[in-house]
Amino acid sequence: MDEPVDDHPPAGETVAQKQHRLFGRGRDTGRIEYFTDAVIAIAMTLLVLDIKLPELGKHETIFEALGRTWEQFFAYALSFVIIALNWVFHHRRFRAIVRYDSTLIWINLAFLLFIAVVPFPTSLLAEVGPTPEIITLYTGTLAIIGFLGGLCWWYAHRADLLSTTIDRELYVYILGSNLIAPVFFLLAIPLGFLLQAVGLDTGWALWFLLLNWAGGRIWARWRGRREVRHDPDGELAG
Amino acid sequence: MDEPVDDHPPAGETVAQKQHRLFGRGRDTGRIEYFTDAVIAIAMTLLVLDIKLPELGKHETIFEALGRTWEQFFAYALSFVIIALNWVFHHRRFRAIVRYDSTLIWINLAFLLFIAVVPFPTSLLAEVGPTPEIITLYTGTLAIIGFLGGLCWWYAHRADLLSTTIDRELYVYILGSNLIAPVFFLLAIPLGFLLQAVGLDTGWALWFLLLNWAGGRIWARWRGRREVRHDPDGELAG
Amino acid sequence: MDEPVDDHPPAGETVAQKQHRLFGRGRDTGRIEYFTDAVIAIAMTLLVLDIKLPELGKHETIFEALGRTWEQFFAYALSFVIIALNWVFHHRRFRAIVRYDSTLIWINLAFLLFIAVVPFPTSLLAEVGPTPEIITLYTGTLAIIGFLGGLCWWYAHRADLLSTTIDRELYVYILGSNLIAPVFFLLAIPLGFLLQAVGLDTGWALWFLLLNWAGGRIWARWRGRREVRHDPDGELAG
Amino acid sequence: MDEPVDDHPPAGETVAQKQHRLFGRGRDTGRIEYFTDAVIAIAMTLLVLDIKLPELGKHETIFEALGRTWEQFFAYALSFVIIALNWVFHHRRFRAIVRYDSTLIWINLAFLLFIAVVPFPTSLLAEVGPTPEIITLYTGTLAIIGFLGGLCWWYAHRADLLSTTIDRELYVYILGSNLIAPVFFLLAIPLGFLLQAVGLDTGWALWFLLLNWAGGRIWARWRGRREVRHDPDGELAG
Repeated sequence: MDEPVDDHPPAGETVAQKQHRLFGRGRDTGRIEYFTDAVIAIAMTLLVLDIKLPELGKHETIFEALGRTWEQFFAYALSFVIIALNWVFHHRRFRAIVRYDSTLIWINLAFLLFIAVVPFPTSLLAEVGPTPEIITLYTGTLAIIGFLGGLCWWYAHRADLLSTTIDRELYVYILGSNLIAPVFFLLAIPLGFLLQAVGLDTGWALWFLLLNWAGGRIWARWRGRREVRHDPDGELAG
Repeated sequence: MDEPVDDHPPAGETVAQKQHRLFGRGRDTGRIEYFTDAVIAIAMTLLVLDIKLPELGKHETIFEALGRTWEQFFAYALSFVIIALNWVFHHRRFRAIVRYDSTLIWINLAFLLFIAVVPFPTSLLAEVGPTPEIITLYTGTLAIIGFLGGLCWWYAHRADLLSTTIDRELYVYILGSNLIAPVFFLLAIPLGFLLQAVGLDTGWALWFLLLNWAGGRIWARWRGRREVRHDPDGELAG
Repeated sequence: MDEPVDDHPPAGETVAQKQHRLFGRGRDTGRIEYFTDAVIAIAMTLLVLDIKLPELGKHETIFEALGRTWEQFFAYALSFVIIALNWVFHHRRFRAIVRYDSTLIWINLAFLLFIAVVPFPTSLLAEVGPTPEIITLYTGTLAIIGFLGGLCWWYAHRADLLSTTIDRELYVYILGSNLIAPVFFLLAIPLGFLLQAVGLDTGWALWFLLLNWAGGRIWARWRGRREVRHDPDGELAG
Repeated sequence: MDEPVDDHPPAGETVAQKQHRLFGRGRDTGRIEYFTDAVIAIAMTLLVLDIKLPELGKHETIFEALGRTWEQFFAYALSFVIIALNWVFHHRRFRAIVRYDSTLIWINLAFLLFIAVVPFPTSLLAEVGPTPEIITLYTGTLAIIGFLGGLCWWYAHRADLLSTTIDRELYVYILGSNLIAPVFFLLAIPLGFLLQAVGLDTGWALWFLLLNWAGGRIWARWRGRREVRHDPDGELAG
């Protein structure tokens, strides 16, 4: 699959140039997608497998113990939903990315490294609780994942790896949708320290993560209303 | 793969509308299926990997120790079979689902969340035993998985994502087959509490899970006998 | 993918019959293969991840500690190789199996259940050592996997799921190659008890597992020498 | 998929010969690639999941504890990057490998065995630290992976499994790029013992691993500058 094509070999080409011409780019992103799916699936599933029943107190039923530790479940469910959201974005992104090069593969691998890291701050959040430091680690990881997703999209446009159906306006719109979530994630960090300073429950900062949904709405309303210019030559010139 | 098609762009379309037209639906469900397979495979395999040999008693052989803890193996095997059954249903369902949209993807991700949860109540069942509370958690999880599978099928029909080979009668028949199992699962919950109240072994309630097979037979006999109407226009009108 | 085809609907067909006609069989075994690969990959990888460094003795280097516990590594490597061998057989088998039905899927799922079980007796072997009981559990699991692989092949022939390139003689030859290994595996069980009875190291029985390679050679020599009859009508009649 | 083709059956063929003709080689490497991806994805993800927060000292913040144990993170990140690099090489290699036989499959399985082993020396490195013995185990494992990758490429050329776009010069160039990294890895072993002998921090030997990047540059400059001969008959004759 995705066998390299050796057409139009230029005269006087060196071996290194030939390797680059044959392998520098590829047309079938299938294997990149399935590899990504495998890593995301493992990170998501192991996240849930990490859930443990707390020690039962005296005269405590299992339901009471589960109720007492609902914050633990909230942490795992939140991470599951955010990784799932990143899978949905990745799935959509690679419908539009129809070619690849080495740089795109490495951006995607960096994205996967931080996906695989998510269970670590999640278990800190579940076991230690939402201190400002742990909120920083947790939302910092999520923000990096979001930015790497945006970087992937930005690079794909810059290196001409996108489908021709994506014109400049749509590219910018999707880039904005990709970046608005990690920006909102980062806002949770000062909020956590602020809540601690005024003596309130720092856990409220986590609910702030869900506001990225609101951010997406605002962006969609502000930018998404523009009409598409039907200028067939404007796609890459933009 | 599954590159968006930009045909018939309407005049005066906004960017948000264009994104929805290009990415709101897709034709190749392959990546959704393989991602699902990866999550199910991990949950199933880790389930079995959870099995531990009990501490050997004095003068006890390994076979005796395994025999003494057969209920543990029964719990894992039961969960394995039920997840396997859900894979079979999912496989069959996505032969008929030939398009997708975002809502279908999120229903499928919720289904996967609960698949990933299964090892948790299974290990409770294996380690603590079949108390009515644990039976509630265990069969509740299985019932939610079943209902989400049914919801996926219901939504696919409603949003016109099914193959045209599925007429309304076949759709209703399969929906019934999908929902009969979780209904039977839920019946195990009051049965567990009832068995406890009358002082009997609550473990019998788990055997009740296997009765969903009988439920499927009854449904197949009642509904499946109807003749198919050969009305080519009735498919979507139904 | 693998959308059901609704051709030649018979008059007076019931809904249950229509479901069976559309979904009872399928033509694309791709998803079955990838699901199998995911389960096998997880079982193989987690097997290796189970390896732990033994406690270092006083004045002991890491190499000495690893040397002292080489039997542990032997157990994991043996299981890895045998699961790998089963993957190779599965890969080859599903090149010839070009259709599937529900029964084939369930035989394959039973095969996967026992693949997922392998790390359990392997860790017993690594931690407790090759007692006759553990050899029985270990080689029993491997034999069941082998027999389920053979059952898969036997059933595929019986239910007409094989490629037409597989004539009866080749079918019988491959069935024999599939069954010879588990038969040799089973022979290790009485050997373990025999070695214990005469006071020898029961670990020798494990080397016997490698003899299944010799068994394959003997079978290939005895049966494989026969000439193929070129009788195009004999394929399914055989 | 990849159904065997039974064309030109020779007269007087035995069953064993027919099996070899039909199954000895195959044309679709897809399943080998996806199986490889699953194993690599699991090894990479579990590597990261192994990261644990150190015990917090008195008055120590989480950031200080993470800072104190940065070598642990370095070990995991290094292993992640090196496995990722091997995935990139494997991905590129199997674009050029367009056929397979049994030997290639077993070389690939041996490659996967050592990929699955990586988390073991990585956790030794993270927990015990960079003693010369552990550097030997760690870089030895990485070197074996590199050599098995090179063996895969060498064998694919020898057994005529490569795309015709790969001429002899490009084959030799890629073989060199594949082998330069493990050679540099092996150099870290004597360096570790040397650093210990002169009383320096043995951890410096690990940075040496990153020099394989420099090795690749040197090789590319020395060999890659040669012009490609445009001799269409020279490809396999080379």
